[in-house]
Amino acid sequence: MHTPGSSTAGYTLLLIVQVVFIIVFGFCTDYAKELLPVKNETANAHHASESEGGNLRKYPHFQDIHVMIFAGFAFLMTFLKRYGFSASGLNLLVASLVVQWAIIMRGCYEMEDGIIPISLQNLIGADIAAAAVLISMGALLGRTTPIQLLIMGILEIAIFAGNEYLQLELVKAADVGGSITVHAFGAYFGLAVSFMLRPSKDQAKVGPLEGSSYSSDISAMIGTIFLWIFWPSFNSALVDGADQERAIINTYLSLAGATVTTFVLSAIVSHEHKLDMVHVQNSTLAGGVAVGSICNLLIHPFGALIVGVIAGIISVLGYRFLTPAILSNLRIADTCGVHNLHGMPAVLSAIFSAIYASFASVETYGRSLGTIFPAMQKPNALNATSEMEPLEYVIGGYGRSGAKQGAFQLMAIGLTMLIAIAGGLLTGLILKSPSVRQLEEHELHKDDAFWETPSEESTNTSTTNESTNQ
Amino acid sequence: MHTPGSSTAGYTLLLIVQVVFIIVFGFCTDYAKELLPVKNETANAHHASESEGGNLRKYPHFQDIHVMIFAGFAFLMTFLKRYGFSASGLNLLVASLVVQWAIIMRGCYEMEDGIIPISLQNLIGADIAAAAVLISMGALLGRTTPIQLLIMGILEIAIFAGNEYLQLELVKAADVGGSITVHAFGAYFGLAVSFMLRPSKDQAKVGPLEGSSYSSDISAMIGTIFLWIFWPSFNSALVDGADQERAIINTYLSLAGATVTTFVLSAIVSHEHKLDMVHVQNSTLAGGVAVGSICNLLIHPFGALIVGVIAGIISVLGYRFLTPAILSNLRIADTCGVHNLHGMPAVLSAIFSAIYASFASVETYGRSLGTIFPAMQKPNALNATSEMEPLEYVIGGYGRSGAKQGAFQLMAIGLTMLIAIAGGLLTGLILKSPSVRQLEEHELHKDDAFWETPSEESTNTSTTNESTNQ
Amino acid sequence: MHTPGSSTAGYTLLLIVQVVFIIVFGFCTDYAKELLPVKNETANAHHASESEGGNLRKYPHFQDIHVMIFAGFAFLMTFLKRYGFSASGLNLLVASLVVQWAIIMRGCYEMEDGIIPISLQNLIGADIAAAAVLISMGALLGRTTPIQLLIMGILEIAIFAGNEYLQLELVKAADVGGSITVHAFGAYFGLAVSFMLRPSKDQAKVGPLEGSSYSSDISAMIGTIFLWIFWPSFNSALVDGADQERAIINTYLSLAGATVTTFVLSAIVSHEHKLDMVHVQNSTLAGGVAVGSICNLLIHPFGALIVGVIAGIISVLGYRFLTPAILSNLRIADTCGVHNLHGMPAVLSAIFSAIYASFASVETYGRSLGTIFPAMQKPNALNATSEMEPLEYVIGGYGRSGAKQGAFQLMAIGLTMLIAIAGGLLTGLILKSPSVRQLEEHELHKDDAFWETPSEESTNTSTTNESTNQ
Repeated sequence: MHTPGSSTAGYTLLLIVQVVFIIVFGFCTDYAKELLPVKNETANAHHASESEGGNLRKYPHFQDIHVMIFAGFAFLMTFLKRYGFSASGLNLLVASLVVQWAIIMRGCYEMEDGIIPISLQNLIGADIAAAAVLISMGALLGRTTPIQLLIMGILEIAIFAGNEYLQLELVKAADVGGSITVHAFGAYFGLAVSFMLRPSKDQAKVGPLEGSSYSSDISAMIGTIFLWIFWPSFNSALVDGADQERAIINTYLSLAGATVTTFVLSAIVSHEHKLDMVHVQNSTLAGGVAVGSICNLLIHPFGALIVGVIAGIISVLGYRFLTPAILSNLRIADTCGVHNLHGMPAVLSAIFSAIYASFASVETYGRSLGTIFPAMQKPNALNATSEMEPLEYVIGGYGRSGAKQGAFQLMAIGLTMLIAIAGGLLTGLILKSPSVRQLEEHELHKDDAFWETPSEESTNTSTTNESTNQ
Repeated sequence: MHTPGSSTAGYTLLLIVQVVFIIVFGFCTDYAKELLPVKNETANAHHASESEGGNLRKYPHFQDIHVMIFAGFAFLMTFLKRYGFSASGLNLLVASLVVQWAIIMRGCYEMEDGIIPISLQNLIGADIAAAAVLISMGALLGRTTPIQLLIMGILEIAIFAGNEYLQLELVKAADVGGSITVHAFGAYFGLAVSFMLRPSKDQAKVGPLEGSSYSSDISAMIGTIFLWIFWPSFNSALVDGADQERAIINTYLSLAGATVTTFVLSAIVSHEHKLDMVHVQNSTLAGGVAVGSICNLLIHPFGALIVGVIAGIISVLGYRFLTPAILSNLRIADTCGVHNLHGMPAVLSAIFSAIYASFASVETYGRSLGTIFPAMQKPNALNATSEMEPLEYVIGGYGRSGAKQGAFQLMAIGLTMLIAIAGGLLTGLILKSPSVRQLEEHELHKDDAFWETPSEESTNTSTTNESTNQ
Repeated sequence: MHTPGSSTAGYTLLLIVQVVFIIVFGFCTDYAKELLPVKNETANAHHASESEGGNLRKYPHFQDIHVMIFAGFAFLMTFLKRYGFSASGLNLLVASLVVQWAIIMRGCYEMEDGIIPISLQNLIGADIAAAAVLISMGALLGRTTPIQLLIMGILEIAIFAGNEYLQLELVKAADVGGSITVHAFGAYFGLAVSFMLRPSKDQAKVGPLEGSSYSSDISAMIGTIFLWIFWPSFNSALVDGADQERAIINTYLSLAGATVTTFVLSAIVSHEHKLDMVHVQNSTLAGGVAVGSICNLLIHPFGALIVGVIAGIISVLGYRFLTPAILSNLRIADTCGVHNLHGMPAVLSAIFSAIYASFASVETYGRSLGTIFPAMQKPNALNATSEMEPLEYVIGGYGRSGAKQGAFQLMAIGLTMLIAIAGGLLTGLILKSPSVRQLEEHELHKDDAFWETPSEESTNTSTTNESTNQ
């Protein structure tokens, strides 16, 4: 019998992609200058301490994010009863491929003399970019081949890097936790791909394997809990000092508020008023997304709690009512419910960021206003700082008022959703082209199509033998 | 059929509590001063670097503790075969609620102008406070409703914060690892609650679901191992410099000694001399508790090992002989055996701390004596340091001799146990009041009463289908 | 019936070993000088900040390695369907015992006045030494009694410490990630022990329990993923500044390259071109080993990727073809395939280190040449630095050319393999002596011989009762 997994054409293509990446790394990258040995002795001493105080100070934050990307997302997606090998394995494969590609694509915007200088900063950026792809993967979980996921990842990262540059460097949106550029982008990109791959009308239903087992729900909690724990690091990795500490505090409180709310609402809206693991595994995290764009602002601890509570409400209601409606009406499947965990909370975060920006002023933020909202600096104050982009490139220019910055925050989320949806539709079109192998219906949400899986029979037999032996 | 989980009254109450917390946060908290933007430019530069060297330096320690509270305790409690959703889920819920409450309650003792200043320090303190509640939860695991747990958590934190202030600020006990204020408090509080909720005589037995399955024992090991790994961070988070490094070393060695001893003793005392997972999951950690109050003292590496060995012995013997005796004689159930992991080792730690304090002197500890045992400072040396409490408030006063400090260490553990037991009895009385829904016998140690659980039948069917498909 | 686990002689021996360790700690160790209180006030201030900037700066790195040793190795080894208690439990026991012993054995080479000064550095070194023993344990997994493992660990650490001192201090090999001294040593030591314990001819086959179950494969992925995440910390823990940051970047890229390659090759060489979990769980990590000895060198980002790709290829081919051939021809069992994950990639790393050393010069490395390759310093430059060993002790002397250093790198791996194999054969001889209890054939790869395991029958019954109750 010709089994579906038997084609190696896709994997050969993947090998070619890896080789191309190596060639690009060879010609277009090098260690950042501060990581190269210095000949001059006096310079060296200063240099080492700079490096110490610089990038390496971020290493614990990096490792926390690294746990989220490679353990958090991986285990969260193991909730399906027969898709755990794919969830944990393909998460590792996809992330390993796209971090390389993200270093290249994001590096295009910070090249020096045609060379991308590589430091710990690039690894942090690459890990964060990978999150966007893994969010999209969550929407499609169990509905694509591994090769489709990889093609999606490559296309998505290219568009992600452009959008990130657009929003942060040209629109100058404030988005330290990446709610706009990562969560909204990843969610709507994935949903657009899902729309393109939508099943025929009679198949738009929850599949027989599209559910959890008792043990897969426990392993998914590994993912949830590690994401929950390290989310403050994700949101605070790119800021420093008091900004960083506020980002940590606000994210912590928002997550706590979202968690309590998730349990309350889950019990209220669920069947027989019992708690639903889907909500607990996902909506508890919505507080981290919803506070992302505003976590370093002066939102006050009680503001952080309120944001978390609202995120929890939106997310649980989304799982309970919106996702089934979208599936039955638009035939857009969203296996992990990324719209409820990442999409809507991220839009909420952007709206909050617009509101808080509107009220931001030098009176409240003092000198840090220019760090938090770079485009609110006066143009003449910028002349001195040579590392700024030329003024003419920034859309809308510098010296913005609070209200204007607020409008640009809304523009950032709007543009991001537009680009993500357009990019996702295009990507989906490519993924369903006849030259790309599609998943057949009986392969949905099932490891066995692409993985050697242990025969359960033999386990049972051994257990039985065992019992007899004793 | 009217199912037990169907009442939403408890969850509505929980929502009200969350709203009240938000209001209290709104009126009584703000970011700590160093986290607010500074207008003055020169001040700002100094300020940022201070913050960097100050609280944020503790961030990796905080994250280690965060893993212990939210992943360690959660997975350790998944050892029951059908209570994994509750263990991992309710751990998250209870901790998320009580950390908010702990910030408020602990903050009452450090208010400035009626406002609690919030920084990373408060989050560390809140996480540590949550540990006490989760320890109590361990004693009751599977014997309460979620709402009973939350009521307990709220009452416990209020009493915890008062006791912590009493022991650390008024009695001036040395307890860097929290063995007295956290472990002993949490364990005896939980046991007192368990006593109040004790079953009728014929039901005081190990229930049919009060055991592990092969896979639940493995997931519990996730908890054990992460607690084991990060315990040095828990014990050393509140000290600095050489004190911190000694706390790390001593905790590491004590855990290693306790682990080896646990395996030896488990094999010796267990049925057929086989190793018992209950001992491995819990008694290996007793070394971390037993060294808690003394981990920063000059106990010498071999002292740390001895403490660990004694803790391992006490803990395994407790599991093997004491817990069953307490259950059958006093009808106090202790599902996770917190008396053996937290209670007795913490009392041991307090006794050791009294002994070591008795021999402490300025000759051995030099200038750090005043940091380690604040009340052993001479009163006249205190005049200079304005941030000290007024002398008259400290019970027993300053300028204590070593022997006197030792006596106060014993007073601290004695008072803590008294307060914990009294508080636990009172809390238990409230939890068993007729207006609070009690667990029925068939709901013990079972997720299904409060959680939607996947039907195992459908899994089996799918697996069968799957096999047929291939 | 006389059950196999019923002898406590071995565990009593273990207790004696623990007591001996305590006595040795009592007489031969103390806290390092900088951890002892200082009497002089002005010295103290300087002292604290030194300690802060010194060892404690490594604490996050230490904790990452701690996770690898105690969680990573533990869960990776749970892949066997009925050996999860032993994998996670014995990993904890063996590591807890050998870290104590490693502090003593490694300390022998850095004694001051007959006392081993203990600081965080010793704990890092002990954790890394434990890795070697756990690698050997991987080769033997399921084929020894717990006591045999512990005897092996004690013998192995003694030889490990001597070899480490020989390669790093006398041969002056560059090996920051421990590929030579840890991975190659641990793998070939374990394989040599396995050779000595080889079964009779008719038993040299894969046993009935020597496979995974669906859930054991998922829990093994916990180990894989945490090892993968924290490998950059393992490789960079012992270097500083720019060297450390390069070690992080190169390890990250090498792991990414190895991961992509592993998936590609796994699909190509496996049955029906399906992905094999054994490859995904192990070969993805080979990139971390293969880059170990060169991760701080100027290997360029694309060099790191190439190393990872080659490591992935070697490792997957080793699992697919070499391990079965070694088992059937030499009867050397290698349960976890440590030869493919640690052995061959480590040899590869050593060869690469020889090549890179050959081209190293002061022109490329500047002043850091002497830090990276200490023996390439000119003898006269050493006179000033008093902390260096006397010149005459270093094998081959100082002032080496690049080519000479390259030859010494090869000498280091050659000597290490020789010592590991000889030590392993000797250890194996002791382990199979008549006075040591051997595992019987029906006890292979099975927890039940040494652990109390939950009866699966009762679980099923409870589940059924449960369903009926509802």
